[in-house]
Amino acid sequence: MSSQIPTQPDHACLIVQGPDRPGLVAAITKLIERGSGNIVSLDQFSSDPSGGDFFQRVVFHRPELAAAKLDIEADLERTLTPLGMTWTLRDMGTPKRMAILASQSDHCLLDLLWRYRRGELPVSIPMVVSNHTTSAEDVRALGVPFFHVPSQAGPDKSASEAEILSLLRGNVDFVVLARYMQVLSNDFLEKVGVPVINIHHSFLPAFIGANPYKKAKERGVKLIGATSHYVTEDLDEGPIIEQDVARVTHADSAADLRRHGADVERAVLSRAVLWHAQDRVIRHGNHTIVFA
Amino acid sequence: MSSQIPTQPDHACLIVQGPDRPGLVAAITKLIERGSGNIVSLDQFSSDPSGGDFFQRVVFHRPELAAAKLDIEADLERTLTPLGMTWTLRDMGTPKRMAILASQSDHCLLDLLWRYRRGELPVSIPMVVSNHTTSAEDVRALGVPFFHVPSQAGPDKSASEAEILSLLRGNVDFVVLARYMQVLSNDFLEKVGVPVINIHHSFLPAFIGANPYKKAKERGVKLIGATSHYVTEDLDEGPIIEQDVARVTHADSAADLRRHGADVERAVLSRAVLWHAQDRVIRHGNHTIVFA
Amino acid sequence: MSSQIPTQPDHACLIVQGPDRPGLVAAITKLIERGSGNIVSLDQFSSDPSGGDFFQRVVFHRPELAAAKLDIEADLERTLTPLGMTWTLRDMGTPKRMAILASQSDHCLLDLLWRYRRGELPVSIPMVVSNHTTSAEDVRALGVPFFHVPSQAGPDKSASEAEILSLLRGNVDFVVLARYMQVLSNDFLEKVGVPVINIHHSFLPAFIGANPYKKAKERGVKLIGATSHYVTEDLDEGPIIEQDVARVTHADSAADLRRHGADVERAVLSRAVLWHAQDRVIRHGNHTIVFA
Amino acid sequence: MSSQIPTQPDHACLIVQGPDRPGLVAAITKLIERGSGNIVSLDQFSSDPSGGDFFQRVVFHRPELAAAKLDIEADLERTLTPLGMTWTLRDMGTPKRMAILASQSDHCLLDLLWRYRRGELPVSIPMVVSNHTTSAEDVRALGVPFFHVPSQAGPDKSASEAEILSLLRGNVDFVVLARYMQVLSNDFLEKVGVPVINIHHSFLPAFIGANPYKKAKERGVKLIGATSHYVTEDLDEGPIIEQDVARVTHADSAADLRRHGADVERAVLSRAVLWHAQDRVIRHGNHTIVFA
Repeated sequence: MSSQIPTQPDHACLIVQGPDRPGLVAAITKLIERGSGNIVSLDQFSSDPSGGDFFQRVVFHRPELAAAKLDIEADLERTLTPLGMTWTLRDMGTPKRMAILASQSDHCLLDLLWRYRRGELPVSIPMVVSNHTTSAEDVRALGVPFFHVPSQAGPDKSASEAEILSLLRGNVDFVVLARYMQVLSNDFLEKVGVPVINIHHSFLPAFIGANPYKKAKERGVKLIGATSHYVTEDLDEGPIIEQDVARVTHADSAADLRRHGADVERAVLSRAVLWHAQDRVIRHGNHTIVFA
Repeated sequence: MSSQIPTQPDHACLIVQGPDRPGLVAAITKLIERGSGNIVSLDQFSSDPSGGDFFQRVVFHRPELAAAKLDIEADLERTLTPLGMTWTLRDMGTPKRMAILASQSDHCLLDLLWRYRRGELPVSIPMVVSNHTTSAEDVRALGVPFFHVPSQAGPDKSASEAEILSLLRGNVDFVVLARYMQVLSNDFLEKVGVPVINIHHSFLPAFIGANPYKKAKERGVKLIGATSHYVTEDLDEGPIIEQDVARVTHADSAADLRRHGADVERAVLSRAVLWHAQDRVIRHGNHTIVFA
Repeated sequence: MSSQIPTQPDHACLIVQGPDRPGLVAAITKLIERGSGNIVSLDQFSSDPSGGDFFQRVVFHRPELAAAKLDIEADLERTLTPLGMTWTLRDMGTPKRMAILASQSDHCLLDLLWRYRRGELPVSIPMVVSNHTTSAEDVRALGVPFFHVPSQAGPDKSASEAEILSLLRGNVDFVVLARYMQVLSNDFLEKVGVPVINIHHSFLPAFIGANPYKKAKERGVKLIGATSHYVTEDLDEGPIIEQDVARVTHADSAADLRRHGADVERAVLSRAVLWHAQDRVIRHGNHTIVFA
Repeated sequence: MSSQIPTQPDHACLIVQGPDRPGLVAAITKLIERGSGNIVSLDQFSSDPSGGDFFQRVVFHRPELAAAKLDIEADLERTLTPLGMTWTLRDMGTPKRMAILASQSDHCLLDLLWRYRRGELPVSIPMVVSNHTTSAEDVRALGVPFFHVPSQAGPDKSASEAEILSLLRGNVDFVVLARYMQVLSNDFLEKVGVPVINIHHSFLPAFIGANPYKKAKERGVKLIGATSHYVTEDLDEGPIIEQDVARVTHADSAADLRRHGADVERAVLSRAVLWHAQDRVIRHGNHTIVFA
């Protein structure tokens, strides 16, 4: 069963960010034109017209992109770096390589695999890593490699984290925690070197600590939410990519809340992954600009 | 400009709650039948079939209800009180009397007045009390009395609270804080003797302390929410009646978030008030059963 | 891979409908009490207190239900039939048997199978029937029988319909059309003898005829919807069970609309199936009462 | 009671549309730069990178805009017209002039007036015209002129339409039909010469003809929607600007559906008006590009 990965050959995605100043858009678009690129879509956002930050996502079509990419990059370097701008240029003909870390709960994992198989996600999936073996069959049935790295007992997780890192290193462009129930150490986050996307339940208001669904039930919440964000050193405090909610009532048991929560989690994580894979999410400080 | 209050003459609303046990629904409905009532709608919820709590809302039609009410109440007392049940019986021909406390921000106040005037709310409004005079004209234009009770400087609010209490006492069945920006003392809450409904903004996750919209913006939230709840001694921790959210993006300024927040707040508060006025909300512990 | 079907042993679900009259709720609940049943939940709705229609769903717990069921049914017959009421009593310890008819597009089929496997649906699945073989492996991997009944060429579908009927007959309690792309004949609908649930895309406003996504795109719709309904002789005009929408923009291609449509379709169909399986949906004329 | 209109002095909004071709964005942004403008925000959309249509909205800051506007327009003319592009340049320091046409039902009218008064809408309101006098007081209380133009009996509405036209002519930049219950003739639409925005209820599926709420109730719809669109000769078939829905149940009466419908209508119309007033809506064929 092979999936068709929805890549866009000979299309490039340019992300530019940095201090806003007059003439930036003109300079960048002229540069693309000079490189024989035709702009297909352009999103731009300035946090403040005077003294704010500038963010731009440009997708352009360029026949024989692979051959021209080095020249365009050299031009970008010459033009943008002196202005204090950061930029990345990505060939959209090559899918991003996504690793998924999972545990026993498989709703987020299966939703991602299902969309991958339908050709909805412009990614390849070189591996799923889990501290349980429950999902091995489902994963391998799609031709995706599955690696079992059991959790280490005790507070020191360095050996299992090292094993995961050795699997990931050089093989992936981003990592998705699809309800992976182990807390990753700061050491891991520093070494992994690629963005890590997480999903967790969210409530209005928040319920701190263990068993939030029980607390939410006791308070009688009417909405169950989920938040997908980039993982930073502050656990669950990283830049938010996407959020959503589902409506619940007093008649929903804590188990029902968990079931509704699972539905929201998989929908929110799948959107966040799609947008990240399409370079639609720009990180800035502790928030994101999402050109969705 | 007079509003038509949507009351239901000769209809009664019976709320029963207490420990669940076999035969409760049969006993209650037989009792209504005995009193010549015809059940129009019945909502029932058991938190757990064995050893749980029982909640019921019955609306029944009874010609010449006013004349029969005392007899029905005596029957309810004889039947339900020995079983440890709490109950209330309300004549739906008489609207609940709602006081509104407001401050400068008028979006929630105006939405309530607007729905009142359209005949959407089964309430009378004997008064609006505000610590500002901004809304006096709008309120009085609807024939609703407006009282200005300025906030007391300093931490001791007892004089102004006493003045508000003397206005409310005996005149109202519930109080709505429509973005009233003064914290009410526990002393006030004990003395007021009627339910108090509040509205406040909510976020996924919560942002504690001052200037939550600024913090929400910094974290890049994608949803802005509002929660309406009964006021208890724990500020903003009382039983939730209703919640909702609106979608926002990175392009929304903190002012835009506030505007979207205002839209959600007035929608959520208006629904909570409607349901409370229709006796659709039953308080239990720190949560609510809402038969909406 | 075995699913745990979430049945409720020794619980019965009683559905009663018919002309409303005083004393109905009391009569029914007394009857349950007489049969040693303890009411767990009760939902009731009257279309009009005087001269309207009455609908009730009661779930009650009755130890040794299987042994007592015949007696309770005799009691129901004696009490309700003379009043012109229709009723059904179902043992919730036995899951409903659901057949799924599918074609090539598998998003709805897979969502149902996935929820079945997670133990979210109180159903057994004796068979999936498809006019394509695409999903055979996915279905059988869950231990569910898969039957391939190819579509007949030409307008006369009687042979293939007869083959499907012979598979269904006696084996299923309801049928779900999970994006089954063949129009079923009235003859089939008469003979199948069990409810048939369908899902289709919906728009505000509707776009009649072929290629609705293209027409929706041309008109610039901002919402893509789906409707699940019972199938009647008037194609796609049967009683609505559930509906929902997803937000789209001008930047979504017709293919994007189709993808968002697929997400809404599977969510809506899964809710409709869950509610039907739990006897939460009562048909009446061309609409439904949904006690969700 | 004066509203503060949220204008943006020395900011211009440039809308460009036409056949897409390489170099367009670069050409336009260079042109703005040449005119000493600093781009604040830029939205761009191509229906198809090869041979499609190009749409752009650019907001730029230009000190002393009023003085420079003619020069910039001349430059735009020289550059864009030869390429077959259509463009408009608007000084965002001047609010658009909005006329509201209303009838008896005032929920949409009041929501617009309420947002205008809160300073949420960058418009001035030179007049409200109604075929009823019900809202006269509400309108004039905000300092907005109110004109009563009674409906003509009979099919010929030319006299009353002529009276409305004589009020509008030269005084307004767009017209909002806030539940105005008269069908406007094609002759009126041709003569009015400015965009006309309408709001109407919508359902999934549509219910054609009179009394749609009754039909929706009979079919048991679960969602009530509203659509705001530009008025064209095909009644209610013009380009859609915005849509939304509210959830309803079998327990909602036709009157409840109407009430929920009113809430959705005023929310949808207010968003459509805001976006139109901010030049965020570009018409193209029978659909819109909305840069919201």
